[in-house]
Amino acid sequence: MSDTERARDILKDLRQSIDNFDAVLIHTLAERFRCTQKVGELKARYDLPPADPDREARQIERLRRLADEAGMDPDFAEKFLTFIIREVIRHHEAIASKGTGQ
Amino acid sequence: MSDTERARDILKDLRQSIDNFDAVLIHTLAERFRCTQKVGELKARYDLPPADPDREARQIERLRRLADEAGMDPDFAEKFLTFIIREVIRHHEAIASKGTGQ
Repeated sequence: MSDTERARDILKDLRQSIDNFDAVLIHTLAERFRCTQKVGELKARYDLPPADPDREARQIERLRRLADEAGMDPDFAEKFLTFIIREVIRHHEAIASKGTGQ
Repeated sequence: MSDTERARDILKDLRQSIDNFDAVLIHTLAERFRCTQKVGELKARYDLPPADPDREARQIERLRRLADEAGMDPDFAEKFLTFIIREVIRHHEAIASKGTGQ
């Protein structure tokens, strides 16, 4: 077996891991969105404030720390959370507009 | 206990779940990046093609299907993969520039 063939085998193996991690990510995200969906419904129903800047700051700080401990760029962890929250806000806006009959 | 107090308790409980899912996401992403880091090193070392459009198309198709089965918007799953791949490309460019001594 040539070096390049061996490299292709290792590549195949790494891609299998990547695909498995992607399945974990998708299912965890799906469950996270189920939670934030309930949060949105609760806030709309009980007229709780839609945003909580203190909680968001604590979330960012914590995820940066977890990322750092796991050997991942903390800036990316922050960008990732922002990316997810943007989608959550989109869902909450949909709930709010449904709630007022729009 | 008033309805609003009960709502605040449920909110606290949901947020605990969200924080736990976020920890799963960060650690899974960290491990996924460890894999793609190795993929990048392997490709640079054995002069394998940096991009594989066929694999990427299969990944998108699969993640859309997994998202759909899990009750998540498939479009978001695709956006999510694109977001992650953009970061991976950034890492691979860093490996490539290191490899040529830049």
